[in-house]
Amino acid sequence: MQENRYQSRITVLRQLMRSRGIDAYLVLSEDYHASEYVGDYFKCRAYLSGFTGSAGTLVITADEAGLWTDGRYFLQAAQQLRGSGITLHKMGEDAAIPTYLQATLKSGQCLGYDGRTVRADYAKQLKKALCKLQIRYEETVDLVGELWSDRPPFPAAPIWELPTVYTGKTRREKLADLRRAMDEVGADCHLLSSLDDIAWLYNLRGGDVLYNPVFMSHTLLTPDKTILYAAPEAVGAALTATLHDDGITVKPYEQIYEDLTSLSDGSRVLLDEDAVNVALCHALPESVIPIVRTNPTTLFKAQKTPSEQENMRLCHVYDGVALTKLLYWLRSQPLCTTELEIADQLERLRAACPDYLGQSFAPIIASGAHGAIVHYEPTAESNCALENNSFLLMDTGGQYWQGTTDVTRTVAIGSLTREQKTHYTAVLRGHLSLAAAYFKHGCTGANLDYLARSPLWELGLDYNHGTGHGVGYLLNVHEGPQSIHLRQRNGGAVLSEGMVLSDEPGVYLENHYGIRLENLLLCRKAERTDCGQFMAFDALTMVPFDRSAIDPTQMTERELLLLNTYHAAVYDALSPYLTPEEKDWLYEATRPLTA
Amino acid sequence: MQENRYQSRITVLRQLMRSRGIDAYLVLSEDYHASEYVGDYFKCRAYLSGFTGSAGTLVITADEAGLWTDGRYFLQAAQQLRGSGITLHKMGEDAAIPTYLQATLKSGQCLGYDGRTVRADYAKQLKKALCKLQIRYEETVDLVGELWSDRPPFPAAPIWELPTVYTGKTRREKLADLRRAMDEVGADCHLLSSLDDIAWLYNLRGGDVLYNPVFMSHTLLTPDKTILYAAPEAVGAALTATLHDDGITVKPYEQIYEDLTSLSDGSRVLLDEDAVNVALCHALPESVIPIVRTNPTTLFKAQKTPSEQENMRLCHVYDGVALTKLLYWLRSQPLCTTELEIADQLERLRAACPDYLGQSFAPIIASGAHGAIVHYEPTAESNCALENNSFLLMDTGGQYWQGTTDVTRTVAIGSLTREQKTHYTAVLRGHLSLAAAYFKHGCTGANLDYLARSPLWELGLDYNHGTGHGVGYLLNVHEGPQSIHLRQRNGGAVLSEGMVLSDEPGVYLENHYGIRLENLLLCRKAERTDCGQFMAFDALTMVPFDRSAIDPTQMTERELLLLNTYHAAVYDALSPYLTPEEKDWLYEATRPLTA
Repeated sequence: MQENRYQSRITVLRQLMRSRGIDAYLVLSEDYHASEYVGDYFKCRAYLSGFTGSAGTLVITADEAGLWTDGRYFLQAAQQLRGSGITLHKMGEDAAIPTYLQATLKSGQCLGYDGRTVRADYAKQLKKALCKLQIRYEETVDLVGELWSDRPPFPAAPIWELPTVYTGKTRREKLADLRRAMDEVGADCHLLSSLDDIAWLYNLRGGDVLYNPVFMSHTLLTPDKTILYAAPEAVGAALTATLHDDGITVKPYEQIYEDLTSLSDGSRVLLDEDAVNVALCHALPESVIPIVRTNPTTLFKAQKTPSEQENMRLCHVYDGVALTKLLYWLRSQPLCTTELEIADQLERLRAACPDYLGQSFAPIIASGAHGAIVHYEPTAESNCALENNSFLLMDTGGQYWQGTTDVTRTVAIGSLTREQKTHYTAVLRGHLSLAAAYFKHGCTGANLDYLARSPLWELGLDYNHGTGHGVGYLLNVHEGPQSIHLRQRNGGAVLSEGMVLSDEPGVYLENHYGIRLENLLLCRKAERTDCGQFMAFDALTMVPFDRSAIDPTQMTERELLLLNTYHAAVYDALSPYLTPEEKDWLYEATRPLTA
Repeated sequence: MQENRYQSRITVLRQLMRSRGIDAYLVLSEDYHASEYVGDYFKCRAYLSGFTGSAGTLVITADEAGLWTDGRYFLQAAQQLRGSGITLHKMGEDAAIPTYLQATLKSGQCLGYDGRTVRADYAKQLKKALCKLQIRYEETVDLVGELWSDRPPFPAAPIWELPTVYTGKTRREKLADLRRAMDEVGADCHLLSSLDDIAWLYNLRGGDVLYNPVFMSHTLLTPDKTILYAAPEAVGAALTATLHDDGITVKPYEQIYEDLTSLSDGSRVLLDEDAVNVALCHALPESVIPIVRTNPTTLFKAQKTPSEQENMRLCHVYDGVALTKLLYWLRSQPLCTTELEIADQLERLRAACPDYLGQSFAPIIASGAHGAIVHYEPTAESNCALENNSFLLMDTGGQYWQGTTDVTRTVAIGSLTREQKTHYTAVLRGHLSLAAAYFKHGCTGANLDYLARSPLWELGLDYNHGTGHGVGYLLNVHEGPQSIHLRQRNGGAVLSEGMVLSDEPGVYLENHYGIRLENLLLCRKAERTDCGQFMAFDALTMVPFDRSAIDPTQMTERELLLLNTYHAAVYDALSPYLTPEEKDWLYEATRPLTA
């Protein structure tokens, strides 16, 4: 039985813990680069617990096993942990891991983890919380690796180039920008370890993480040296030579740890403790002066170049055509159509575009009650036919040469109740209100989140996830520093020109249905007056909302105008790429609504 | 000439600096308690520079003199500094003081200030910024005190009791709450130095700061001792005995510094570095372990008790009656009426209420262009008659046994242009939108500020001050931790039941006019659903807006409904206290508006 598989793995882990004198062992979600999504090699937490969400930490002691995850995964984790003997701890509701360890560990006991999978600042935070107990730390043990007999191979897919026509900036220019940023903070060395930052910096892409075209690598930068640490076979001879011409030396992936130990005394090393693992930090000589800052590349990458912006507009038309063809196709499908069939059909429609490279994340095609599981993915076991008189929620995305897409549409299947329409309309009103935000430069996502939630709050509803995340360019579908959340770390990033953000409010009724509506927005400069620079968003996503699920009497005149204006733009953008029948359907689907 | 007075004072200060080997000297706004408003004894910065705003810091070096202040005071400071030779540095626009000192001071030079007037965390911040230079600090010199021959006496007004019927909580109960909070953070001692916290804690009030009924004092709390440091003659024998019965020992004000030096080794002292001066910190023995937290009383005080809430509703009716009588009176006044005459008339009308105790801040009665100076106060020199075809801005407040008020109304004088009405209407729309916020518990002011600014932003306008501040109960008109700002320190305080906040958007056109509309709002619990606790505001302030300045065609149906509902409540609350003529006028003034 599946349940016992995880129980027995944890039993073996406990034997290994005892043999090493470890009293509590942490298994985190991250690879060696603090990545949100990781290659199969790194899925130790899923191997041990069965929980496959993108975020969650296991804590194993001699007699307890707990999994901590966030609101997106409460339902999924509860289901996947069933029978594993692992307790679900809800982040934001239950005591956090440091507090749990404080209460659980006794003075003199030992806490173990694989330091390569632990962000430096998280290790700091743990040690701070436990400072009153005299805890021994065992930070160089990969116990799951020891017991995982059929562990997948370490990823090393070929690395490929993204031409400047797509990026709008050469790697030489980006390296020069980065060196200027190092200079500004007085750094003479920069340790860069986050995979999407590295991919962005060199205009390179890889295939080491499903959906995220990154590659296993580190980078060390000094005023006159640029070293890329990556598997030589993944880089290949030709690319190595090209990089060499740009002044970049390629060294083996593992070499970074040794090279760090030989940094010269008193080096001032710029590093992001949120994006560098604690094993790298331990490799730095004592005499090094760390300059702890967010990686400058994180902000550079978030502000898309004019070329990237133009390209992203284009790939969203391609993506909108595929989605619209899917919606048209769906209208004529019987109720017995399954979630997986819909996912397959969408993938076929997207793949018809020659510039399509693949999905940007696992497609969420969720019928009826599945829609209430925020990050549901249909599998062979869960797959089901369309539920009648309910909603079908589809949250999918693609990777194109012209950028990354991420779009959610929820459509009515059968006929809806008044309450269902009220919920759909409230989500749409929140979505439109945020998309129409007009704000002074200096605002962060925390200043705008209310706009998306307010129509739901007025109904006593809410959603247990952020309203928006940043999106990469043919890169990770989640990227920082920008986001739309009520509470933001360090005050939040200022929303700036060229940033791409999702706008995705939702309603989730457990065991009933989920509704989420998501467009990507491009932040742009609007008017500049005596009072300062004003900012606004352009919708990148071009896909109609479901007219039949909207109750226009619940919308204000302004909201109807916003919807009709968006729908007119969708029709104009997509109709040239549609068959006459699809075009007629889209014309109806985007006709102006009135109250 | 007035200009030369400040120049010559600075010349004397420079002589004193030279004689002590001080290269740069700071003169801050604060008293010894980090107060925002201070007694005359402490107005060293105004004495030296002529700038009378509530916030601003002077930096004097051998050849430069600069004043740093914030957006509220840019215009006023520019006027008041004219001829003084002092350069105005705009906070938020120009380099901050630590950066200025970094660039100005040379290694080995000496920075001086009176440590009693410097918050501990500000001293830390300065020293951190200057850590690379080897700066000598002279922290115990009050050079302005040395040159200020006719300095006012140290304040020591009589201290009086606020009965429990007003506070809803005895001082014994408050002390017990505070000791529980100390316990929670493992403190065995608490140093409390902020004047409004101390006044709140003991249910005492004083008269040592104009408009703020506080008294010069410190407090030291241990599990079994409560010591109030205050002038014995201000406390008086009867109150000393009463306090003694409640377990409180009164000691002389200055005694705290000596008592701190004799705290037992290893004491864990709870203190708020933002509310304790650096001289107090220096008095603590080395062995003491500081527990740095916001004073627990700050949050307690902000959440008004049910009694305080009921009382504040009442005093806002009293205050609204006075304001409404003023508005009625104003209608029949000739244009030659002056700002000061209006201030006097309002004071007479407020004083007609037996529970009125005085003003809660210097009244701002600003006609025409004066309204664009955010914190303008009419003086004998500036006083002017009403400007026709413009606005009169009145921002005033009172202290009542039932609480503190703070209200701004702007009224049309003569006839307004379309643009003037558009500006008034936009301010009103922002004001109403924030007052109608409906939000989940957990939100801070940063999440709501957009509501007040959005109608202005859409016109390319903005205001250079926060949208809202907390307000005390028969105490300081500005109190934390809650506020409505786009950016908040440490993420901002969660808006909670019983908090009182101002809602005061504005438009300021330099040399033309200012418009500000301000009500106080009481935060209360609304519906509780499966998704959590929802919150809303009740308007405390009861004064009509100027119907003649509103363009109803620029308002949405919802905004008109909000306005009309508020106006109906104003009429119901105030009409029983008005003469028939005033009542008729108010009836017209609050009649429903339609587009």
